[in-house]
Amino acid sequence: MTQTAAILIIGNEILSGRTQDTNANFIALQLEELGITLKEIRVIPDIHETIIATAQQFHKGYDYVFTTGGIGPTHDDITAECIAKAFAVKLEQNARAYEILLAHYGAENLTDARLKMAQIPVGAALIHNPVSAAPGFKIENVFVMAGVPKIMQAMWEHVKTFLAAGEPIISVTVSCGLPESAMAEQLGVIQERYPALSIGSYPYFRMGAGGVSFVIRGTDKAAIDKAAQEIVAAVQKMGSAVSLF
Amino acid sequence: MTQTAAILIIGNEILSGRTQDTNANFIALQLEELGITLKEIRVIPDIHETIIATAQQFHKGYDYVFTTGGIGPTHDDITAECIAKAFAVKLEQNARAYEILLAHYGAENLTDARLKMAQIPVGAALIHNPVSAAPGFKIENVFVMAGVPKIMQAMWEHVKTFLAAGEPIISVTVSCGLPESAMAEQLGVIQERYPALSIGSYPYFRMGAGGVSFVIRGTDKAAIDKAAQEIVAAVQKMGSAVSLF
Repeated sequence: MTQTAAILIIGNEILSGRTQDTNANFIALQLEELGITLKEIRVIPDIHETIIATAQQFHKGYDYVFTTGGIGPTHDDITAECIAKAFAVKLEQNARAYEILLAHYGAENLTDARLKMAQIPVGAALIHNPVSAAPGFKIENVFVMAGVPKIMQAMWEHVKTFLAAGEPIISVTVSCGLPESAMAEQLGVIQERYPALSIGSYPYFRMGAGGVSFVIRGTDKAAIDKAAQEIVAAVQKMGSAVSLF
Repeated sequence: MTQTAAILIIGNEILSGRTQDTNANFIALQLEELGITLKEIRVIPDIHETIIATAQQFHKGYDYVFTTGGIGPTHDDITAECIAKAFAVKLEQNARAYEILLAHYGAENLTDARLKMAQIPVGAALIHNPVSAAPGFKIENVFVMAGVPKIMQAMWEHVKTFLAAGEPIISVTVSCGLPESAMAEQLGVIQERYPALSIGSYPYFRMGAGGVSFVIRGTDKAAIDKAAQEIVAAVQKMGSAVSLF
């Protein structure tokens, strides 16, 4: 049984379009490598009730939950207090987080705003932040990380030590210059022959030229290679060049 | 009362990390210009029950729902049949969609796979696709678009003619090289003074240098400018250069 996961992106700046989120894609690729199935990505605004309700729903619905955003020092950073409420625990100054911030800023610069970043839900384990010191945290199956990609990615190094890897998902891509629809029928037949694999069809348009990539995914390398060869043969039969990678 | 919206991205390729979604960001920016409030972005897999349930929930929960992905000719394109089920209507060959595909492909090349793209829920209005002919559709408040960004963006030109624009949201950004936490307290005070505005704080790290952008959003230009000037003054008081745009 493979483990499931969901990503919760917390941030008005994504919903306003100001920022293009890249954290979800980073985490998705990492989970793929670990053989953990990502079931959902959700982007929600900085609203207390929405964060609390979604965190509770995800906590119950998935094996792992990864949140990004809202753990900084300013008034719009409300993730820690919301996660505490979601788990019905208190938010308190974490002694270890305090030490970390003290070492980083020094006593004279450890302002109230910065101290806010030591407020962690009771019972949570800290997530190491080698970039800007202020830690993330993990409470049960929920991992709370920063929104700045560079910090989030640094935190991920620690997060992944908590995760139970599954069977790695293998993926093979067959690309050709045919229109997607030309291959649709044969592709459906091949998919039926390999019900344990997931075969996706993704048309593309680049520099005026079009084509399609067929992506075969699963955990059985031999079956994937066989299905890929059947697709390659079907493409070649239609007189098109084909690449496999 | 401003209109609300949600985006539903349908596609295993986003969840596997193979593809970085950019459609949500495109739509988010368009909605911002139109003064429509984007409340949620959700990425879900190509699973019938998930698509049906989410479409129903979004249909009831938001004024506008925008979906992307899953309307092509292959076996993994299941969005149209799922949306039909979500609205408890039949999926049938749409006469106008048939004409469009016939004109585009010609009778001899209009295969069964391509004809699948003329299958539209009963009662839906077509969305024009000037790139690759196969139309999207609109049923009640749900707009169903292609996943390929170039096609989705072309469809958007038609989609936006259906939308009731609200008061445009104005956004002003104040950036400086201070650490985010240095300004946290003053920023909280300014936010309290302007409860109708949303003031966000977004630290950044570029080329080794760090800083923070404060983004003031709302519909009242005069109030936004006043709040921005207060933030500028607070930054300058701390001895930092500041830029406003």
